[in-house]
Amino acid sequence: MKVHTDYLWFNTRKRQEFICITSEVAGIVKSSGVKEGTVLVSAMHITAGVYVNDLEDGLIQDFQTWLEKLAPAGLSYRHHQTGEDNADAHLKRTIMGHQVILPITAGALDLGPWEQIFYAEFDGQRKKRVVVKVMGI
Amino acid sequence: MKVHTDYLWFNTRKRQEFICITSEVAGIVKSSGVKEGTVLVSAMHITAGVYVNDLEDGLIQDFQTWLEKLAPAGLSYRHHQTGEDNADAHLKRTIMGHQVILPITAGALDLGPWEQIFYAEFDGQRKKRVVVKVMGI
Amino acid sequence: MKVHTDYLWFNTRKRQEFICITSEVAGIVKSSGVKEGTVLVSAMHITAGVYVNDLEDGLIQDFQTWLEKLAPAGLSYRHHQTGEDNADAHLKRTIMGHQVILPITAGALDLGPWEQIFYAEFDGQRKKRVVVKVMGI
Repeated sequence: MKVHTDYLWFNTRKRQEFICITSEVAGIVKSSGVKEGTVLVSAMHITAGVYVNDLEDGLIQDFQTWLEKLAPAGLSYRHHQTGEDNADAHLKRTIMGHQVILPITAGALDLGPWEQIFYAEFDGQRKKRVVVKVMGI
Repeated sequence: MKVHTDYLWFNTRKRQEFICITSEVAGIVKSSGVKEGTVLVSAMHITAGVYVNDLEDGLIQDFQTWLEKLAPAGLSYRHHQTGEDNADAHLKRTIMGHQVILPITAGALDLGPWEQIFYAEFDGQRKKRVVVKVMGI
Repeated sequence: MKVHTDYLWFNTRKRQEFICITSEVAGIVKSSGVKEGTVLVSAMHITAGVYVNDLEDGLIQDFQTWLEKLAPAGLSYRHHQTGEDNADAHLKRTIMGHQVILPITAGALDLGPWEQIFYAEFDGQRKKRVVVKVMGI
């Protein structure tokens, strides 16, 4: 059994930004030498998420508009009494999910026709990290 | 270490349909010969989800009513400018989750008393797939 | 390859309660002897969840207020026709997520600076369980 660990670093220009990371994850899977197994892709910060969905700009905007409606910025959250201003980022990342596990079959990511992996940043403009853990044979 | 891969196919009659797949997943686990490990059950299409909850028709209807409130069909989503009409399906599956990992203990799914695995279709009436990846010893 | 299974038991005093379980999970990882791998932490009851976020009381209250808005208690849910009164608990746990997978690197949980693991109880005051499944080498 092989276990291979790598990290992806992000420092977005905008506070909120969704970034497609499918090819980076595929590259780490290839480097690992794992032919059959899974890869965990997980945000290591609690105001960012990782999710699988469509690489289509309109839909990405729909997601962002929708999250703003479900978990608005600028409300008087109790978390802000600590000096923070990002409670909405914690809620938004909860909706999107903080991690995914992708299957690896025959040496490659076993994704459906439209599946793309995204890093969803909700409180960026600073260095943040995603762990990528490959396990298998 | 063993890794065993299988796929479940769906082609629902209705656009939206929730289908209990616990016995199908249990069957694949049995076929795999894995006694201790985990099984990943993951939708390969981005308008469907996989989740664990109760096999109770009233609750399934509650989920569907609730999702329609949180992520309504028929709004003027930007995604629809591509010709699609299913943006709400992408959002709904995001709420429900697109995958689960179930533990395998002593050769069987290690589920709590009411845990059932569901395929949640939000844009059906065509062939779609779920990957089932068993890993363990 | 090693696979190690353990369970955490909960019986909360309040119906809804969020409990930090990072040190319990870290202890099980240490007991397992796994140096490189992953650990699945998954609620075995369908009105409880497991999630990763901040150990900050204000934010925990923000989560609870927010969940009450998105999935209110006391509506006339169809699930309640079975005699149950906890449909909102099923919906709330769906938002928070029912499980997480944490990476294990160099013999310890590989968590980001603020990541803490929580058990989220939405229908407590009775014995409930979380499965902790460690896999790796």
